[in-house]
Amino acid sequence: MTPKDQPSFGVCPSTTHVTRGSLIASKKIYVGDLRVPMREISLTNGESLTVYDTSGPYTDENKELDIMRGLPKTRLKWVMDRGDVEYVKGRSVKPIDNGYKNEAQLKNRKLTHEKFPASPEKPLRAKKGANVTQMHYARKGIVTPEMEYIAIRENQRREQTHGHSKKGANFGANLPELITGEFVRKEVAQGRAIIPANINHTELEPMIIGRNFLVKINANIGNSAVTSSIGEEVDKMVWSIRWGSDTVMDLSTGKDIHDTREWIIRNSPVPIGTVPIYQALEKVNGVAEDLTWEVFRDTLIEQAEQGVDYFTIHAGVRLPYIRLTNERVTGIVSRGGSIMAKWMMSHGRESFLYTNFEEICEIMKAYDVSFSLGDGLRPGSIADANDKAQFAELKTLGELTKIAWKHDVQVMIEGPGHVPMHLIKENMDKQLEECHEAPFYTLGPLTTDIAPGYDHITSSIGAAMIGWYGCAMLCYVTPKEHLGLPNRDDVKTGVITYKIAAHAADLAKGHPGAQYRDDAMSKARFEFRWDDQFNIGLDPDTARKYHDETLPADAAKHASFCSMCGPKFCSMKITQDVRDYVSANPEPTDKEKVA
Amino acid sequence: MTPKDQPSFGVCPSTTHVTRGSLIASKKIYVGDLRVPMREISLTNGESLTVYDTSGPYTDENKELDIMRGLPKTRLKWVMDRGDVEYVKGRSVKPIDNGYKNEAQLKNRKLTHEKFPASPEKPLRAKKGANVTQMHYARKGIVTPEMEYIAIRENQRREQTHGHSKKGANFGANLPELITGEFVRKEVAQGRAIIPANINHTELEPMIIGRNFLVKINANIGNSAVTSSIGEEVDKMVWSIRWGSDTVMDLSTGKDIHDTREWIIRNSPVPIGTVPIYQALEKVNGVAEDLTWEVFRDTLIEQAEQGVDYFTIHAGVRLPYIRLTNERVTGIVSRGGSIMAKWMMSHGRESFLYTNFEEICEIMKAYDVSFSLGDGLRPGSIADANDKAQFAELKTLGELTKIAWKHDVQVMIEGPGHVPMHLIKENMDKQLEECHEAPFYTLGPLTTDIAPGYDHITSSIGAAMIGWYGCAMLCYVTPKEHLGLPNRDDVKTGVITYKIAAHAADLAKGHPGAQYRDDAMSKARFEFRWDDQFNIGLDPDTARKYHDETLPADAAKHASFCSMCGPKFCSMKITQDVRDYVSANPEPTDKEKVA
Repeated sequence: MTPKDQPSFGVCPSTTHVTRGSLIASKKIYVGDLRVPMREISLTNGESLTVYDTSGPYTDENKELDIMRGLPKTRLKWVMDRGDVEYVKGRSVKPIDNGYKNEAQLKNRKLTHEKFPASPEKPLRAKKGANVTQMHYARKGIVTPEMEYIAIRENQRREQTHGHSKKGANFGANLPELITGEFVRKEVAQGRAIIPANINHTELEPMIIGRNFLVKINANIGNSAVTSSIGEEVDKMVWSIRWGSDTVMDLSTGKDIHDTREWIIRNSPVPIGTVPIYQALEKVNGVAEDLTWEVFRDTLIEQAEQGVDYFTIHAGVRLPYIRLTNERVTGIVSRGGSIMAKWMMSHGRESFLYTNFEEICEIMKAYDVSFSLGDGLRPGSIADANDKAQFAELKTLGELTKIAWKHDVQVMIEGPGHVPMHLIKENMDKQLEECHEAPFYTLGPLTTDIAPGYDHITSSIGAAMIGWYGCAMLCYVTPKEHLGLPNRDDVKTGVITYKIAAHAADLAKGHPGAQYRDDAMSKARFEFRWDDQFNIGLDPDTARKYHDETLPADAAKHASFCSMCGPKFCSMKITQDVRDYVSANPEPTDKEKVA
Repeated sequence: MTPKDQPSFGVCPSTTHVTRGSLIASKKIYVGDLRVPMREISLTNGESLTVYDTSGPYTDENKELDIMRGLPKTRLKWVMDRGDVEYVKGRSVKPIDNGYKNEAQLKNRKLTHEKFPASPEKPLRAKKGANVTQMHYARKGIVTPEMEYIAIRENQRREQTHGHSKKGANFGANLPELITGEFVRKEVAQGRAIIPANINHTELEPMIIGRNFLVKINANIGNSAVTSSIGEEVDKMVWSIRWGSDTVMDLSTGKDIHDTREWIIRNSPVPIGTVPIYQALEKVNGVAEDLTWEVFRDTLIEQAEQGVDYFTIHAGVRLPYIRLTNERVTGIVSRGGSIMAKWMMSHGRESFLYTNFEEICEIMKAYDVSFSLGDGLRPGSIADANDKAQFAELKTLGELTKIAWKHDVQVMIEGPGHVPMHLIKENMDKQLEECHEAPFYTLGPLTTDIAPGYDHITSSIGAAMIGWYGCAMLCYVTPKEHLGLPNRDDVKTGVITYKIAAHAADLAKGHPGAQYRDDAMSKARFEFRWDDQFNIGLDPDTARKYHDETLPADAAKHASFCSMCGPKFCSMKITQDVRDYVSANPEPTDKEKVA
């Protein structure tokens, strides 16, 4: 009854397991010639339900996997078939990439920080003059296999949802009844959606981020200078996608950043995002003033060659905006934003991210890394929401979006943060306008600051709302936000909470594939199919455990009552009586007519 | 560092403790001649913060309490001073009130279900012809001590909040900078707010429910036929108000209902609500068809004499509306609603709650019990939200409101339930219109059905939104919703989650007393006052515990960094550099001017 922890075939440093096995009553299916993975939930009434599945091969009982070798490179053929990439010598990995000054230091590091043993010998890069972004293909009218795959994936066997969709309020989103490869292409071509898919991350199961698709979520993982190991981080990635994370950001700081990332990417079926300035800062020993464009540029190439799918780059934090934060309650809270602020103040110069933006685009398009334009001046408190610093940066992000699009580089825009409910919609509206409908990707936002320990909840409120208004991806917040680093339980809680927010948003938008699952749950509830209620839900294990705390007997799972009312009285039973009554009296009696 | 569990002076059946002692760094203070209790949080920088306090004398270290005697009857003088009540013989308690057929059965019940030993000998009732409701006084222009008390309580030392309020979006709410007794009177007179305060519940610390006041929350407790004991329920009440529940509903079913309620009321400083039809049903052995107006009426008097402050009465479920639910996915899910539907179908007659509504009003005004007009036809699933059955009932609730007001009886209106985000505002708008601005009191609503085990979260989203739109009180939902009965941990999680929703709503409405606490938190965060961050929050214990998981050393609580970034780099430190820079360069340099 609990998820199986099967040992992997190899041994990952400091963890002997990653979580494997399917969820209860679920099996992995592959749809169409492109073998798009989905999760099919078997119900006790003989029906089944297919749901979106982010978990990768880990939940396929028939797949032999070895995290020492990484996932199969199923996308490699598509990348190679386009004929526009080549293996290059690439940049050689240096001790400083892992935070060590020389080979001797590197050799002496703890064994838990072992090197991934099966890295590709050479990275892929676009041939000279070629542009290998999905946006570039889209604009040339090419529907790539990635786009076809995504269309099937987003539809989730749409035939099963007939009669279950209701009109929502979509604030201008365009949610077609059926997604086609051509629809995907058009959305990507126009910049309204991105497919984060580095040509060096061929383990990827392609997915899309855009407001005319299902709302997505991201989970952050990563060790910091203070705590945690590579093994834990790989397991957190596998664990977070098991529960539904659509992308994962590796926000590691401190030692062994390069190797941690290698372990994660080689074993990840979802896009991996990073904040390259974090590693660049490590390379200059944590001294922001010592950062240079050259160190940063080299880090971009290092990470692009590894296969990072999107980079958070805080190029919108410009020198003139720094002083706009002076009267804030919490100043600059973005790490990337504050690093750049420090650098600019020290040098009295405009940000090297801003001045070198076109060159960054050249790198991005050689590997198809997507921009996640960072909101380095996002508010860090309710008091600072929607202020002039935040919106000055947003306007610049819109200008940078245009530049990236000139290079056919994919862009999404990061957003706040901490915003009271009544100021959330303004964020979405301004973002759509200033950033020309590039997808929005927000952190929460938290709707109050008074509940440390519960910021997954303070932020799920804001996340659901901004998702409804049009935000394309929601970055999760865990219960540990502002307090510490999330452990495995926190990661799960954060992911499930954000799946709730994203799904509530899809429902409110009237996404044609959303209400089907709610209806299946409600029907199971009405018919007292307890096991189905657990299994249709986002977290079958917890639901079952909670139920069993009160009524552990297996018989109770087949009983037509529950612990809330007990066996003698049940409103669901009475509803059946109503149905019998109406069936026996199809026309209202005189007594039933309101006077 | 953990909350103190002090033994009570007596021994409550099956629990030897109720939780006592103040929260960390907090002390109880009493403001003004009326000695209005508040909680003062001491900060490490020498400042302090006063917050709304629902916890009653249990958190006053200087109070000797004995749950065998109940709380002091501090409100008795106010009630008696009005000269319009008298002690009456009252209705004698019968074995059937506790679900037993005769005295012999009652005597043989388990010891855990002991009788409360210090019940008042006689109940109070209005003198013949008198009307003792707060609404009645309000309409006569009288500002009662209860109203004065509430004004002070709602202000929460408003002087401390100067400069911390921001403009919200209030959808027509009227949120004055300072609440006066006269403002309270007017709101009650016009029916826009209620003060649930039975003359027999003199242990009460008066509070108000209305959209022009702080948003309130309710916690449900109660044993069911399947599980739990009286002792646990008393402890759950004390526990729920410790964390901020403004009212508590005792939804017990099964045996010992009368005695459970007596224990709870005698020990409760917050208003207690019930659903009298639950007990009436027990009296007829759970057979809905056997209910009579007489049994119900007798139950109302029984509970009014005990001191119940508000009754949920499903008088809006009319015979003609039953068949409107026939095509629903989940039919009728309200227990009260389905009991009445069953009764009406069986007898082919209009509901006795509807036909006897004026007589119910006569009872309510003799004790000042407030109506919580139940939404017996609320949707039980996303699919059924905002349907014709629900809105037909709402219209009837509006008509009944007018009748109650004719008797100067206080009324609030219950609302859903399960509603996707885009349909929430319609609920609020229609309720305001149909029910003439009587306070709205909703259960959530849940914004999706696919997350059993997390319905505190699915519903906190809806609760925050409807609170913002104007809902006056939010009925909590715990993680066990749809699965089992909440335990102590679930009660706490539910309460904290709903305090978040209520506060997020107050912030968004621009309540002048709301943002102060967020600002204090943000300031503590910016200044690395870790202990203050924990203590200002809604749950200091959990915040501290989470922090200590990563950085347990006490020194870390004084460190100018945290586990997220580590000691080497910290954005908060850089913000201080920004301030120093701007201070040194008050005018922008040429470089800082945007080209």
